[in-house]
Amino acid sequence: MKVLLVFAHPEPASLNGALRDVAIDELVSQGHEVRVSDLYADGWKSEIDRADFPELDPAKPLQPSKASGEAFASGALTDDVKAEQEKLLWADVLILQFPLWWFTMPAILKGWVDRVYSYGFAYGVGEHSDTRWGDRYGEGSLAGKRAMLIVTAGGWEEHYSERGINGPIDDLLFPIHHGILFYPGYDVLPPFVAYNVHRLDDAGIERLEERLRERMRDLGSTPPIPYRKQNDGDYLIPSMRLRPELGKPEANGFALHLERPAAL
Amino acid sequence: MKVLLVFAHPEPASLNGALRDVAIDELVSQGHEVRVSDLYADGWKSEIDRADFPELDPAKPLQPSKASGEAFASGALTDDVKAEQEKLLWADVLILQFPLWWFTMPAILKGWVDRVYSYGFAYGVGEHSDTRWGDRYGEGSLAGKRAMLIVTAGGWEEHYSERGINGPIDDLLFPIHHGILFYPGYDVLPPFVAYNVHRLDDAGIERLEERLRERMRDLGSTPPIPYRKQNDGDYLIPSMRLRPELGKPEANGFALHLERPAAL
Repeated sequence: MKVLLVFAHPEPASLNGALRDVAIDELVSQGHEVRVSDLYADGWKSEIDRADFPELDPAKPLQPSKASGEAFASGALTDDVKAEQEKLLWADVLILQFPLWWFTMPAILKGWVDRVYSYGFAYGVGEHSDTRWGDRYGEGSLAGKRAMLIVTAGGWEEHYSERGINGPIDDLLFPIHHGILFYPGYDVLPPFVAYNVHRLDDAGIERLEERLRERMRDLGSTPPIPYRKQNDGDYLIPSMRLRPELGKPEANGFALHLERPAAL
Repeated sequence: MKVLLVFAHPEPASLNGALRDVAIDELVSQGHEVRVSDLYADGWKSEIDRADFPELDPAKPLQPSKASGEAFASGALTDDVKAEQEKLLWADVLILQFPLWWFTMPAILKGWVDRVYSYGFAYGVGEHSDTRWGDRYGEGSLAGKRAMLIVTAGGWEEHYSERGINGPIDDLLFPIHHGILFYPGYDVLPPFVAYNVHRLDDAGIERLEERLRERMRDLGSTPPIPYRKQNDGDYLIPSMRLRPELGKPEANGFALHLERPAAL
């Protein structure tokens, strides 16, 4: 398979840097082709602004989604964004690797999403009608591909458990899993999460790396999180509410969007 | 009261720009003192990197939380970060205003959080012992102050409802409300959310602005979201799990952290 790893940590000599190398080595040794977008090393620009749309009339106000749709359609996006879109289309698997900062991704990776996910590429795709609400949530430009997070967290695993004070990790990651990866079509694999990373000893790091190698070996076979596809009939149109007869009444808002909540 | 509004939209001539002006006008006319951090206009730097820590030994790997704690303690943070921290300490109320991009804040605002929320300032505060797990979640440097989001979304309100496909807006915003605002001590007010913003007509915008004026008038009296404080006895230490007898069994992971789930 072809794998794109997007890496968002400022320090190569970090646990994140070590885990990245472990992942890449294992993937290569399994015969996969790997490309890496190292956002810090590449000096990735994080902010969507007017410079992203060189052909936008300077007299016009910037409407980011409109400008992004026009630039995507006319091939007028900047080269850095086009290169990332090309890599996304090339890859069978996308891996986003980052330290969990304030319960989500670092700014530089959010800026990669904001800028690379153009209108017409990652959203605003497909027919909008009485029976379809565009190609999104399981359909879209990146459908048929797999995606997965590799995340490090300073906090304890218990603090991210079902009743932990931070909130359950699956719910904290839902906006990324469902809203950023499933949205343009990816099958989303369960995340690889390393906890308590500032307090790991050598043996702990070794166990972590072995667990990551295993995940990389199973990249093609791990069952994805069973999110419901938007256009398979589970949602009412245009309210996009889950049909009243579906979902356990006691499921939380996010878990409603799983076909088999018990499976997680 | 003293109000700090952090604004994260690239275009002043936008609905966000208009709402910002409405909010400021109303606050000023109520006699409040208002300061604005306009991140795009100020050219805010989004990425935490080595340049944030001028005194860090170039031979040492960058460990962001460690470097941030050392620089905060020795007064060696960069001027832009120090200025924002000073504003946060000055303000009685913090307002974060942004368009919801990919179900969370734009990169530039995440970068404001990543860089301004230093170790020792927004986390790593207070005593860690058998009976206290630091001053966080309701306690900390910013305790006694209020915070609130002003958010615009392109999607429909129904899509963000309890059974809507995007997930409920309260759950989508939980990582910001609870993880970024309540964490360093803020009382978090219910958010102001504008939906369907690309399809609003003049009357719709007028209604929206009136609703925002009302929220600004009630800024001092609106009851905050009733999150449970970490150190008030509801959580076990050190697992930081909610005590088994607390929380409705059918509450979802996030709603468990409300003292009165029904209140929302």
